[in-house]
This record gives sequence, structure tokens and C-alpha cells, in this order.
Amino acid sequence: MTARAAILIVGNEILSGRTQDVNIQFIADRLNLRGIKLAEVRVVRDEEAAVVNAVRALSETYDYVFSTGGIGPTHDDITAECMAKAFGVKLEINPEAKQRLADYYAPKGIGLNEGRLRMARIPDGASLIDNPVSAAPGFKIKNVFVMAGVPKIMQAMFLKIEPSLAHGVPMLSNTVTGALREGDIAIEMENIQKQYPDVEIGSYPISINGDPSLSLVLRSIDEKKLKDATDKILAMVKPFDADAVVTYQRPPV
Amino acid sequence: MTARAAILIVGNEILSGRTQDVNIQFIADRLNLRGIKLAEVRVVRDEEAAVVNAVRALSETYDYVFSTGGIGPTHDDITAECMAKAFGVKLEINPEAKQRLADYYAPKGIGLNEGRLRMARIPDGASLIDNPVSAAPGFKIKNVFVMAGVPKIMQAMFLKIEPSLAHGVPMLSNTVTGALREGDIAIEMENIQKQYPDVEIGSYPISINGDPSLSLVLRSIDEKKLKDATDKILAMVKPFDADAVVTYQRPPV
Repeated sequence: MTARAAILIVGNEILSGRTQDVNIQFIADRLNLRGIKLAEVRVVRDEEAAVVNAVRALSETYDYVFSTGGIGPTHDDITAECMAKAFGVKLEINPEAKQRLADYYAPKGIGLNEGRLRMARIPDGASLIDNPVSAAPGFKIKNVFVMAGVPKIMQAMFLKIEPSLAHGVPMLSNTVTGALREGDIAIEMENIQKQYPDVEIGSYPISINGDPSLSLVLRSIDEKKLKDATDKILAMVKPFDADAVVTYQRPPV
Repeated sequence: MTARAAILIVGNEILSGRTQDVNIQFIADRLNLRGIKLAEVRVVRDEEAAVVNAVRALSETYDYVFSTGGIGPTHDDITAECMAKAFGVKLEINPEAKQRLADYYAPKGIGLNEGRLRMARIPDGASLIDNPVSAAPGFKIKNVFVMAGVPKIMQAMFLKIEPSLAHGVPMLSNTVTGALREGDIAIEMENIQKQYPDVEIGSYPISINGDPSLSLVLRSIDEKKLKDATDKILAMVKPFDADAVVTYQRPPV
């Protein structure tokens, strides 16, 4: 049974259009390699009710929830409070988190003032997630991994927790690209999809040198079925574009 | 009362990491200019239950829902069916939509086959959204605007529907940028935030030439309060960086 995951992005900066999210794609790629299915993403505002309701809903529905954003020292960083509230536990200064902050700031001659100490507040019962970039830890509570929103820090945190995640069969992907339109092959492709329910076939119109083209993406954890379905899709496309090609995306060995 | 909106992205390609979403930022920017608040985004898989449940929840909660993706001719394009199901109406060939497709394809010598006709299926009672790029229309059902996922087409559709949206007061934004750390000013900034509840103050760490810096973003529909809060934030930052600057983001006149 493939584990299923969701991402919860706590971020006014995404919803205001100020910041282009790049965390979804990073986490999605890593989950693919791990054989975990990313089933849903929610982006909510930095508001308590929004965060609490979303994390409860996602935590109940999915095996894993990865949250990003809102764990810094400023007033708009409310994720830790929200997680404590969502799971009905206290939010208190965690001695280990406080020590990590002290060890990080002391050599820089920076004291642990009230603002920075906010980053040591961890919900009771949560375990810390290492932050190799800037010390202030994330944490895991129930099935929710709470990480920073800054991509460089989020990525470093994710790589730390990755070994603890279930290891499924990595998703394999083939892409057939050819100069044709979706409408040319929609029905035939649907029939191929029906023959291969274990292969997910997606159709994405693209433009190549201004001409309409298609990327037909086949994804499966079953190499044999993926190959068979890809052969059929390629044979379907060839009459429209004899130069149609297949590209392969495989996890690194 | 500011209208509130949500985006629903129907897209395995986003959740698989294959495609970097760019639609959120475009819609967010346009809604800002229009004075509409983007409150939530959900990305769901191309699966009926996921789409139906999400659109019902968002439609009940927000004034507007903008959906992107899943309205093409192929088997993985299930958004139209899902919208019909979510609102308990039939999905049938719409004569006007069919005519638009016929008018678009005929000069290219392309017939309306079964696949292409799928794009003329519109939920009963929905109104069409013009597609100036490739004819196949989107539609509006209740408070949900159903658009294509291809950014160029989505953007053209959005600009068509924009004049029909409520016109609120556009959000104004000032950004104070300086060389300092969040922990230096977290508590003082929180006090300023409390003095100006109508100004949303966000803090975003950035790196400038490798040095830790901060972008403090102030957003409000009230120009006077925004100016006053910005002055206070700038005065707070100056002791740390005498060269701190303010940049202004204003809608075009």
C-alpha cells in the first residue's frame, strides 16, 4: 500500500503573489523517489483557524503531512502555536531546542532575546527536526512534519527526515512527446488507459517552435506495465509524428 | 467587506513535481489589483472524489473559486464532470460551445471528433468563459470559474472574467529591506503590528550578497495607515542598517 502525503503551506506571501512557491516541486520530487504519493496541497493564510483546521483535516486523511512556513521568531510565525492547538497539547520552551539556538548564536555574539526564544517553543511530545542551516529546529507532531518556509532550510530539513519515512516503490515515468493535438488521440488514449489501470497516463499540451505538441506522461511503479503502455502510446502517436520520442525518468541508482 | 477567493488546481502534474505551478501567482496578482483577497489554494489529484469534495468546500466558504486544469479533451480531463456532480446538475453538449469549437477547427481542416466534442460538455445552467487562445470555453457555475490549466489560456480566460468580479479597494504594499536578522526586531515589530491591525506586516528573511537581510512587507488598503506603519518599521530598522530602503508596490493607474 503506497503511503499518501499532503503539503500544508502556511504563507501569506504565496497567497499575495509576492513569492513564487518552489517547495511543492522539491517535496514532490523527493516523495516520488521515496515511493510516497503526494495527494494534496493546501496553501493557507497565517491565521490560526485556517492553519488549525487545515492541519487537522490533512493529518486525519493522509499518512504524512509536510508543513512549510511560519516557524521563525516574528509575530507572523504562528505555525507552532497552531500545531499545539490542533493537537491539544501545550507549547513550551524546549530545552534541547533552546540549547541548539544558544550554541548557534553564541559564537556570533548574538544573545537569545525574547524574539529568538520563540523559535525554541515546541509542542509537548513533538520530536525535533534538525536544521543544519540556521539551527532553529522544526518538529514532528503525530504524522505532521513542521518545517521552515525558506527553501534552502526546508530542503535541508526534509533531507534530515527523509530516512524516517516509509520506503515505497519509486514511481517510474516515461514521456512520449510528439507533434499532434490532444483531440487527435483522446479516445484511443482513453482506451489504452483503461487497459492499464496501474499506469497513470496524463496529457499535457505544449508548444514546440510555435507548433502544437503533446507530452504524454506515463507513470507507474510497475516497470513492465509501464513499458507495455508506453509502447502502445508511442504506436498511437507515430502516425501523427514519425519522429515522436520517448524520454525516461528514473530514480538515481 | 473585501471579497474572498480560493484557487482550486486540478493537477496530477503539479503533485508529481513534473510541472512548476505559475497560475497561483498570476491569479494572486490580479486579485490584489482588483481588491479581492486570495485566502486559500488547494491542489488536488485528477480524481473525482478529490475534486468534488474540494470544490464543494471552497464554494461554500469563499465568494469566488477559480479552478484551473482538467477541461481538455482527454480521459484525464475530468473537471467538467466533477463540477456537474458537485452541484447536482447534468453535463451535456452545449450548442454554443460546440459552435465555437466548430468555428475554430473548421478553417484548420480539423473535424469535431468524439474527443474534441468532450470540450463542448458544459454543466447545465453554467455560463461560458471565452477562450481567445484555443476556443474551447471555460465556464462559470455558481461562484466557481472553471478555467484551463495551460497558463497562457488560463490568463486569457481570467482577463475575460475579471470585469465581472467585485471591485474592492486594491491592496497597497510597501517593503522595507535592510541588513538585519528577524530575531533583532521580532518583539518591537510585533508591537507595531498590534498598533496597526489594518496593516498586514510580514517578515521574510533573504540573503543579500550572502549576508542575512530582511524584507518586511506591509500591506493595507488604507494608504494613510500603511504610511504611518511603514514609517515606524523603517525607524525600527535604521539602527541596524542606516541604508535600509522602502520600495512601493502600487496598482497601475
